[in-house]
Amino acid sequence: MTTPTQHRLCMIPGPVEFDADVLNAMATPATSHVDPFFIEKFGSAIELLRKVFFAPTGQPFVVAGSGTLTWDATAANLVENGDNVLVINTGIFGDWFAECIGVYGGVVDAVRAPFGSRPSLAQIEAALTSKHYKLVTVTHVDTSSGVLNNIEDICVLVKRVSPNTLIALDGVCSVGAEVIKQEEWGIDVVMTGSQKALGVPPGLAVMVVSKRAVEVALNRKSPPTTYFASFKKWLPIMQKYEARQASYFATPPVQLILALQVSLEQLVAAQGSLEHRFAQHRAASAKVKDTLESWGLQLVPVNRACAANTLTAVYYPAGVAPAEFLGKVGLKGVVLAGGLHPEHATKYFRIGHMNVSVVNDSLLNHLETTLDAIKAALQECGHKI
Amino acid sequence: MTTPTQHRLCMIPGPVEFDADVLNAMATPATSHVDPFFIEKFGSAIELLRKVFFAPTGQPFVVAGSGTLTWDATAANLVENGDNVLVINTGIFGDWFAECIGVYGGVVDAVRAPFGSRPSLAQIEAALTSKHYKLVTVTHVDTSSGVLNNIEDICVLVKRVSPNTLIALDGVCSVGAEVIKQEEWGIDVVMTGSQKALGVPPGLAVMVVSKRAVEVALNRKSPPTTYFASFKKWLPIMQKYEARQASYFATPPVQLILALQVSLEQLVAAQGSLEHRFAQHRAASAKVKDTLESWGLQLVPVNRACAANTLTAVYYPAGVAPAEFLGKVGLKGVVLAGGLHPEHATKYFRIGHMNVSVVNDSLLNHLETTLDAIKAALQECGHKI
Ligand SMILES: Cc1ncc(COP(=O)(O)O)c(C=O)c1O
Ligand SMILES: Cc1ncc(COP(=O)(O)O)c(C=O)c1O
Repeated sequence: MTTPTQHRLCMIPGPVEFDADVLNAMATPATSHVDPFFIEKFGSAIELLRKVFFAPTGQPFVVAGSGTLTWDATAANLVENGDNVLVINTGIFGDWFAECIGVYGGVVDAVRAPFGSRPSLAQIEAALTSKHYKLVTVTHVDTSSGVLNNIEDICVLVKRVSPNTLIALDGVCSVGAEVIKQEEWGIDVVMTGSQKALGVPPGLAVMVVSKRAVEVALNRKSPPTTYFASFKKWLPIMQKYEARQASYFATPPVQLILALQVSLEQLVAAQGSLEHRFAQHRAASAKVKDTLESWGLQLVPVNRACAANTLTAVYYPAGVAPAEFLGKVGLKGVVLAGGLHPEHATKYFRIGHMNVSVVNDSLLNHLETTLDAIKAALQECGHKI
Repeated sequence: MTTPTQHRLCMIPGPVEFDADVLNAMATPATSHVDPFFIEKFGSAIELLRKVFFAPTGQPFVVAGSGTLTWDATAANLVENGDNVLVINTGIFGDWFAECIGVYGGVVDAVRAPFGSRPSLAQIEAALTSKHYKLVTVTHVDTSSGVLNNIEDICVLVKRVSPNTLIALDGVCSVGAEVIKQEEWGIDVVMTGSQKALGVPPGLAVMVVSKRAVEVALNRKSPPTTYFASFKKWLPIMQKYEARQASYFATPPVQLILALQVSLEQLVAAQGSLEHRFAQHRAASAKVKDTLESWGLQLVPVNRACAANTLTAVYYPAGVAPAEFLGKVGLKGVVLAGGLHPEHATKYFRIGHMNVSVVNDSLLNHLETTLDAIKAALQECGHKI
């Protein structure tokens, strides 16, 4: 068994490696949730989220939880019993989000594509014109397939065909690394967790909600069937913290929020701009994918246009056994993830490349170390390179 | 504004001061949620919770969230639309828990007592015999009033009068400090958050559920209206981690769970026994309360039998202004909490005394430091001692 003193590089699609200042903030001594120091940092984090999400008038929510809780929050607050919801499905996270929406009374249709590809705009348009949907959800990057959705095109389509339909983006594996212009593109909800491209340990549900969607939530016919994830409960709390005032609904996870604030400052400040950061993720992704392909491996996404920049999902070459390969990589000090999609899990593995492992790569050498470990393990497993 | 380098003692009723090893675990480098090291620690934490809750056959659940999420989980999983629920109310947390139960369709009656006291057993018996309740909830320590409920007596009463009624204990401000024999007393759900007597930073919802209550949750007529807080979803995950196997429903907050495991080990190991720890909390509480009374202050709880051992709620003496007093204490390096109950908030303040500040008091001197700061601030505010 490994111990933290024998740290292995965590190159899975979340949790990712963390910056030292972010980790230090996790160990901040006991601080009251209404201490002026914490109020200032929480307020700052809320403001910074608007920048990172490109949503100058959006309402950020930061609550103890994880990416999954943002599904509950979206469904519970925006969907009422019997409301039609369209899920654009590019992997297992689409199935699970759909299940969650059903729990809150949504009647879900899905637009699907074969594993490794994404539904066409024509398919989505056909669905959108077949009936009225209150909400359409898109998984930006489905972490089970490594498929990237063309969210900007989908937004243009929805605005043209069904402008009253709310758009919710599962950005759990994209926010902070893939381009998202929430307000310009008219996305009503963008969701994420802390442990992916935001580069913070797991434990936070993070989302930014449009004014339009907040209104929908506040003017529901029936009250939402959630207490902990209620927008109505959290809205005044977020507003108070942003106004640098004390308030309380449920105790916020002080240390995680301090760590988030540190990481968000790095996101907006480091090396100039978020655009630069997005370009770095595209470059890192291309490097990993080009290298793997040059070794004769085949990516799960059917083409580069629909391949995520935050992770690489790639098939094992013939003759390489999953457990043996992942075990050998692990012995070389690098942790990768196996497949996740239940129907294909044993055929492919996944490499996460986000946050410090990408933007500090020249310093940290995470990508080279990872690729070297993969190469050696493949060779030991009998694959010729 | 204070910064973490000018740390002030956090003597509020949660978050409390943290042990150094617990804080170090918060800064554990990136670790996969399915890494063998983490699986081992999470499995161990689950086992340790059974000891701390005195529930050898209970099912622990540990989920990213906070104490409030354990209310949602209890209500969403155990209450169906129209089910009768009796809330034994000793402060504002009883009101809020009742509101949460209503969100999930429960029809709530409350047994109340004047601020500072607790309902009599006769009152509770009268309510229990008036109709059948599926669930009765008790706030063990209401953090807004400092009132302690006689949970053992209440359990005996419920078992005698209405043995099929499930018993849920809000132990957010008691677990790990006040005596709770979950299984012996027949409590179906005991809830807490990480940031109180468990001595871990905020961010975890922690609960142990009886076999009987798990059965009720799994055999509901209607599915629960929660996805993130579903017992059915988390049960196999908790079982797998305990069996030291990988599994996934939503990413667990790795660092917080590592910190929890460290703290739980301290709870069961330190200085012999949990019983000793409970006694230490009684002694610390008596010391704080005796001292304040010797200075002419009046406690909020009407007598010592109904006064919590985890915090002290005490009225400001005549002529002492809340903001001035709390400000002066803060300048002396100690953070206290104001009143919380909306009808009485400006009349009293609260001192938390849990975990390291109690069990390591001889080393850390937190209680003396706090009492000294209070004494000096009272005198500066014109109160004669
Ligand atoms: C695309 C996507 N959506 C949702 C989730 C769920 O997030 P969490 O595991 O933080 O609950 C994940 C987690 O990996 C994800 O990748
Ligand atoms: C008795 C009691 N119940 C519930 C809660 C809610 O817990 P949290 O603030 O962690 O959500 C608290 C918080 O102080 C509490 O003291």
